[in-house]
Amino acid sequence: MTDVMSTVKSMLLAAWLLASGAVMGQGEVAPPQAEFVFEIRALLAPTEVQGESKDGMRQVIPIIGGTVIGPNVNAEIVPGGADYQLVRPDGVRELEAVYMIRTDDGVLINVVNAGIIVDPAAGEPGYIMTTPSFQAPVGKYDWLNKAIFLSKITGGSDSPRAVHISVYIAR
Amino acid sequence: MTDVMSTVKSMLLAAWLLASGAVMGQGEVAPPQAEFVFEIRALLAPTEVQGESKDGMRQVIPIIGGTVIGPNVNAEIVPGGADYQLVRPDGVRELEAVYMIRTDDGVLINVVNAGIIVDPAAGEPGYIMTTPSFQAPVGKYDWLNKAIFLSKITGGSDSPRAVHISVYIAR
Amino acid sequence: MTDVMSTVKSMLLAAWLLASGAVMGQGEVAPPQAEFVFEIRALLAPTEVQGESKDGMRQVIPIIGGTVIGPNVNAEIVPGGADYQLVRPDGVRELEAVYMIRTDDGVLINVVNAGIIVDPAAGEPGYIMTTPSFQAPVGKYDWLNKAIFLSKITGGSDSPRAVHISVYIAR
Amino acid sequence: MTDVMSTVKSMLLAAWLLASGAVMGQGEVAPPQAEFVFEIRALLAPTEVQGESKDGMRQVIPIIGGTVIGPNVNAEIVPGGADYQLVRPDGVRELEAVYMIRTDDGVLINVVNAGIIVDPAAGEPGYIMTTPSFQAPVGKYDWLNKAIFLSKITGGSDSPRAVHISVYIAR
Repeated sequence: MTDVMSTVKSMLLAAWLLASGAVMGQGEVAPPQAEFVFEIRALLAPTEVQGESKDGMRQVIPIIGGTVIGPNVNAEIVPGGADYQLVRPDGVRELEAVYMIRTDDGVLINVVNAGIIVDPAAGEPGYIMTTPSFQAPVGKYDWLNKAIFLSKITGGSDSPRAVHISVYIAR
Repeated sequence: MTDVMSTVKSMLLAAWLLASGAVMGQGEVAPPQAEFVFEIRALLAPTEVQGESKDGMRQVIPIIGGTVIGPNVNAEIVPGGADYQLVRPDGVRELEAVYMIRTDDGVLINVVNAGIIVDPAAGEPGYIMTTPSFQAPVGKYDWLNKAIFLSKITGGSDSPRAVHISVYIAR
Repeated sequence: MTDVMSTVKSMLLAAWLLASGAVMGQGEVAPPQAEFVFEIRALLAPTEVQGESKDGMRQVIPIIGGTVIGPNVNAEIVPGGADYQLVRPDGVRELEAVYMIRTDDGVLINVVNAGIIVDPAAGEPGYIMTTPSFQAPVGKYDWLNKAIFLSKITGGSDSPRAVHISVYIAR
Repeated sequence: MTDVMSTVKSMLLAAWLLASGAVMGQGEVAPPQAEFVFEIRALLAPTEVQGESKDGMRQVIPIIGGTVIGPNVNAEIVPGGADYQLVRPDGVRELEAVYMIRTDDGVLINVVNAGIIVDPAAGEPGYIMTTPSFQAPVGKYDWLNKAIFLSKITGGSDSPRAVHISVYIAR
């Protein structure tokens, strides 16, 4: 991109921001909305506890399969990924799941889903929230590259060992 | 994993999916809610265009000051941070702002706010969403370490050059 | 750590740096040395081409097994990892291999090996260098958490499909 | 890049790897060499201790100026960056310095220099090593985008407060 084009783009953006500012002041701004896009049902192998590490207690949960089902995506989880978890010194659990999904029309998409789990404590509810990001090829699933997503673990089962993850686009 | 085990697992999965479908359908899970926490008003120096780089066009916007105002946080932006921007090959702008804020009770908090801007195109609205993360000391602002946040650029001005960023906690 | 302890540590470090400065001026500084620690032989499944993506051409090479052999580490690669590759707009290939190894005494260690491959071009030699990082539990392999490593892809084979990766500690 | 081109590139790479394997077996492989490229002299403001955080003790050292001097780069450090430090639970100090440099021919380059400091302990020498990475525009400084670098803190002073950082390319 030439510098001129870049400058023009910046000016357009500034104009757009000013226009938004003109119609919406602080307090009137609509907060982001989370709109359901798909549910991931991930099959898990038993947790492997690695033990105390340089930065907290670490454990890994292998992801051995599963499905992704939603209005615009139907896919299978490619076996072989894992959720790398760290229990931080302050007790919060950081998770980072790295895996791939293959859509029913043959597209391979990388998934990195990182976030935190705060276990419920005396009088305090727990908290689970993650921000999945995707690397999808150009084409039908390109919208996954162009937005911010949230996900919540919304259920699961013990036999087989599995979790349900509801994924939302932030708008 | 042997083929037999794999088959058994698949059958268990099928049974489980049917069973879960019966107890919990999509739509019963509450989507995440975005709750306003504070507004950042960032003062900016002129954009410095770096030009074509290894991964797209790069530019940097120095952050020279500003304020953070909300029910539970009142702070000033420490001059010296910057928003490192990349215009990806697909035209989407990735931003990553790195800076610090100092609260009115003297606590220094690191901010990394990364996200994307899709400029409005013919017939398509633009999109701006980021996921700020914080490194706060233990104590009054510890809640910033224990949640996922979203932010939207909601306005701005040209003189002084500034943007308004509304920050929300995802619950 | 208390602020006092932190200050004392900083002073000790400053003293140490000054002492080094006193004995070694610019030009006399010994450059880092790369000392061999182990060789990774990674077995690979066929490359899966994902195609043009938001930031370049992407492909994934599943890691289906292998060995780690060295004076202080003997381990097997846990099947299930992958090397996520991106061919950047400037033609350089970025690789990021994410997997786990299990030592012969039962310790599970995470590996993230990121780096670049510049293919040989007319008159120019190629370049391959990566900086593997490790997450090891406290104990015998803790030294992997406390140093910077380099690795080079030093060979390979087609049948079985494999690469050899020589890993060095930078001192 | 088309799939065909990608396949051809992969084949060439495989051939190249095999060729290297043919001439160099394990043990004969030349270890990476670190070749001096430039020295960074960074001027620092006093350390700001943030205190215990979610993942260890945190402190920030503002970078207020400095120089970069070497055979192929002469630059000034743009004031405004910082070194974000974390003292991990295992006592190792992780540093991450984020700043920009402007060359004497007007090119603006981003620097992220991350690494570790192990303070000297009873009977054990200290360890300092980092892996700086650069985002440079296409052109004269493009080689900074296409290699792996190491750096060592090799000295410093108290008045003015400064550190010297010797940077090497790994070959």
